[in-house]
Amino acid sequence: MSHLKTTTSQLNRLNIENFKLSDKYDIYIILDQLRSGNNIGSIFRTSDAFKLKKIFITGQSAIPPNKEILKTALGATETVDWEYHENAKNLVQTIKDQGIKVFAIEQAKNSTLLQDFKLANELPLAIILGNEVDGVQQELIDMADGCIEIPQFGTKHSLNVSVTSGIVIWHLVNQLLCAEN
Amino acid sequence: MSHLKTTTSQLNRLNIENFKLSDKYDIYIILDQLRSGNNIGSIFRTSDAFKLKKIFITGQSAIPPNKEILKTALGATETVDWEYHENAKNLVQTIKDQGIKVFAIEQAKNSTLLQDFKLANELPLAIILGNEVDGVQQELIDMADGCIEIPQFGTKHSLNVSVTSGIVIWHLVNQLLCAEN
Repeated sequence: MSHLKTTTSQLNRLNIENFKLSDKYDIYIILDQLRSGNNIGSIFRTSDAFKLKKIFITGQSAIPPNKEILKTALGATETVDWEYHENAKNLVQTIKDQGIKVFAIEQAKNSTLLQDFKLANELPLAIILGNEVDGVQQELIDMADGCIEIPQFGTKHSLNVSVTSGIVIWHLVNQLLCAEN
Repeated sequence: MSHLKTTTSQLNRLNIENFKLSDKYDIYIILDQLRSGNNIGSIFRTSDAFKLKKIFITGQSAIPPNKEILKTALGATETVDWEYHENAKNLVQTIKDQGIKVFAIEQAKNSTLLQDFKLANELPLAIILGNEVDGVQQELIDMADGCIEIPQFGTKHSLNVSVTSGIVIWHLVNQLLCAEN
């Protein structure tokens, strides 16, 4: 079977205006204490691709416009809705009060391994991603509805945070796509 | 339920020697024409976490030791087996002859959407990831046993290649973990 590469025009992507108007998946991303603009920009790009609802950036994080973010977001800061909130705890409480379930992505006691995390009625849902070195703050984990852990079998302590976000977002979107069929 | 963060020592990760001796998943990564050391290093880190068999780097790509690769691999170039081959076509033919099924990760006609890619007896399996701008070379796609495409719904043309690799690797490893249970 022939697999000719799709040209850019054949991809028939949305423009910014139509993206803004399109339905999004009820998935929110909270980026707390993320210092690397490269990582944040990459997460914007991933959130654009999977039509996520909104990115919340909190605490001492890089925020757009930032040279590194713009370089890796490739324009996705103009499409994906985002807000900055200085106080992550207040934000988490606010969105929980709005009925959004919040899950920390972290290696922690009693966490749910990602392969065991099957969406039932957790949407709308937010995931918290934390600092590149220190991970998600314990006080945010304590406020969350659950903690999801990506199983890891090698020598390193963790995955890159933009890779982590891609894996978790795909794990969720994959289930939603399969449910649509 | 308490979700106390796991300390580094509690993670109880393998050391290099034990990693080398441990069983790996029969998954190979081919990185062809990848220019960014940051991306390659990040893919090494992901391949360490998921115990992949080997990374092949081909063509005009950055190779270890390279400052950017070492920065993002965080030591995973010392754990994950890797080889450099100048000629990607020869490599793909060689590993196909060894019984390894080869899949290009690309947006292409007649591709299999990732959510539809269920492992049956495709292992050992190799995935080809291509250049950051141009993607996988058409001549490699033509040699592959199949083409897998990550569905994308936004305005951007593609995902970052290290995020792409994380998503595809997780999609495979998730199925293997679920089959183990």
